[in-house]
Amino acid sequence: MATFVMQSLGCDVAAINTVHFSNHTGYRQVKGTKSTAQEISALYAGLKQSYLTDFDVLLSGYAPSAAAVEAVGEIALDLRRKSNAKPGSFFWVLDPVMGDQGRIYVNEDVVPAYKKIIPHADLILPNQFEAELLSGIKITSLSNLADAITALHRTYNVPHIIVTSVQLPSTTSSASSTVTAATAATDSSSASSSSRPDTLTIIGSTARSDGSPRLFKVEVPRLDCFFSGTGDMFAALTVARLREAVFAADTATDNPSSSSSSTPLRTTPSWQSPDHVRAHDLPLARSTVKVLASMHRVLEKTMVDRSAELARYPPVSEEDDKEFAGLSGAERRAAVEKRAYLRATKAAEIRLVRNVGLLQRPEEGDGVEFVAEEWGV
Amino acid sequence: MATFVMQSLGCDVAAINTVHFSNHTGYRQVKGTKSTAQEISALYAGLKQSYLTDFDVLLSGYAPSAAAVEAVGEIALDLRRKSNAKPGSFFWVLDPVMGDQGRIYVNEDVVPAYKKIIPHADLILPNQFEAELLSGIKITSLSNLADAITALHRTYNVPHIIVTSVQLPSTTSSASSTVTAATAATDSSSASSSSRPDTLTIIGSTARSDGSPRLFKVEVPRLDCFFSGTGDMFAALTVARLREAVFAADTATDNPSSSSSSTPLRTTPSWQSPDHVRAHDLPLARSTVKVLASMHRVLEKTMVDRSAELARYPPVSEEDDKEFAGLSGAERRAAVEKRAYLRATKAAEIRLVRNVGLLQRPEEGDGVEFVAEEWGV
Repeated sequence: MATFVMQSLGCDVAAINTVHFSNHTGYRQVKGTKSTAQEISALYAGLKQSYLTDFDVLLSGYAPSAAAVEAVGEIALDLRRKSNAKPGSFFWVLDPVMGDQGRIYVNEDVVPAYKKIIPHADLILPNQFEAELLSGIKITSLSNLADAITALHRTYNVPHIIVTSVQLPSTTSSASSTVTAATAATDSSSASSSSRPDTLTIIGSTARSDGSPRLFKVEVPRLDCFFSGTGDMFAALTVARLREAVFAADTATDNPSSSSSSTPLRTTPSWQSPDHVRAHDLPLARSTVKVLASMHRVLEKTMVDRSAELARYPPVSEEDDKEFAGLSGAERRAAVEKRAYLRATKAAEIRLVRNVGLLQRPEEGDGVEFVAEEWGV
Repeated sequence: MATFVMQSLGCDVAAINTVHFSNHTGYRQVKGTKSTAQEISALYAGLKQSYLTDFDVLLSGYAPSAAAVEAVGEIALDLRRKSNAKPGSFFWVLDPVMGDQGRIYVNEDVVPAYKKIIPHADLILPNQFEAELLSGIKITSLSNLADAITALHRTYNVPHIIVTSVQLPSTTSSASSTVTAATAATDSSSASSSSRPDTLTIIGSTARSDGSPRLFKVEVPRLDCFFSGTGDMFAALTVARLREAVFAADTATDNPSSSSSSTPLRTTPSWQSPDHVRAHDLPLARSTVKVLASMHRVLEKTMVDRSAELARYPPVSEEDDKEFAGLSGAERRAAVEKRAYLRATKAAEIRLVRNVGLLQRPEEGDGVEFVAEEWGV
């Protein structure tokens, strides 16, 4: 997902796979292997010994152990060192994949490993639970969501944050204050909370020079489907679009996000906009709007294709008789149910390759345009 | 290379990596691991248990051991079995990667392993040396090149063949009879034979029903550069373009390659055209012409960018003093030379991602068009 999305937006990608799996884990069964920290480090050493590490951006996602997280951190530090003489020439987007919905799905020692490396990242993309783990603040309201983002900026000195999956307790939610996020669509449990408005909200922030958050929000229609890979899709699109937005800020003289000083934003450490730039004019906000438009359009297409694919399978087909001939009663019902689940999961696979034009030009045709708003709590 | 090329032409790809390397071997140094046969089989088993093996085409390339070749063969056989009830619904493109220029660069037991599985393939893409290994015929002239292709069709019952890298001894070569191939550009030794005409020739054949070859050739200008990955690029483009050409043969009623019988070509076993179809009208020939046009245009762009990149590096830069400070004399010269080689190799990396439009629409702009000719010896 991440590699193809970045490639289709014109990035040359060197991918170090942290797992070699037959399928994503949404199928609830998988075969394959996880990379060891040594394997990850060796591949980077291989790139380095042949002068192949002139990267502009590092995107790091799931790492299968604390040692693997440390190995990724070492890679980022090495790339950062190389770029020290040229501020802004290297940017690290870190997705601290640790868990979701109150549940950690990595080893417990992965959490402190992330806490150690995040101070070197430029942009982090936690979901609500990961933001809680990293900030130590339980997010139960809009007000302490802002507190958590403030804490993340201050504790880790990380200039850019997007919280990609927020769900506040329903007791505090109303049509105007409900905050969810685009990638909450990956959460099957959210499908049950049908009383919520059909809107997802993304919250992002680029810190001001005093470390205070500069918050924006983007609302998008929520699609009633479980998709796998939206987190990686969001991250990969952001890699390409944020860089574009930073370069645009330097070239458009009438752009309110442009730097007033003589230093172009792209040569400013961490691409951190000057304090006068308003939240909704941040390159991070402009990027997010474009990213969400691509995602929304591709996911809409996916839902159409998914319906057509599901319609091709009757609940119990004649094949069942052959395939599950040896089974009977409860066993057979379980097998039929499992197959239906696997087919439904496949039917919801994001239709990426055939909708690559929507990654590149989300505004074309019946394009949607989302809006980033300054968000004060 | 292969995955992105197929994706950019609209194919959904499930890739089973047979190696996890930091870089291609053209750099002469590499870090990483090779997949075991067990790992390859496990990934396929993972796809299968979740109903994810509904593939139209299998492309198999380098496999690092005889056991890995056998594992790939098992996968192909399983996919073939599934498709037996629907002829033409599965097609296997097999690149029998074993060696080049008279040298085997895999274990010797890989050769018999390939000989066992090739009878199940639909299209094979050997270079000259691999064609010799498989046919047992030393290719020293156009006449015994045809003999070798005949032997491959007959021995392995393989309906489609493209010999992708042929170099005949210079004593037999002339402007009209020299036969080389597009992927010969990957061969550094060919750069020294500057007396040859600047033309590469690709030879392909789809067998007639009696097993006799139906030969065509395509000539393209040779580019004076060593590229890595052209073999995988050719194979991946062929996967997409051959399928297109087969479907086109069924829809265009005035197409000379269309089947005269009531059976569409796409539901004919192995997409084997009826005997009346002339060599130059074969879907395989039409596909090859388009594949070579994309390759030529992307490689031309690569050469331009390569020159610009090489121009950025002076033969000995100031950096040398720092980087090789501890070395002196012969050591330092060797280090400088090695770095120059690595930089030159990187500069020649095929510019794929930014020229994806040329993969999709090779005919656009100042497009080239190559011609397939019936070739009789």
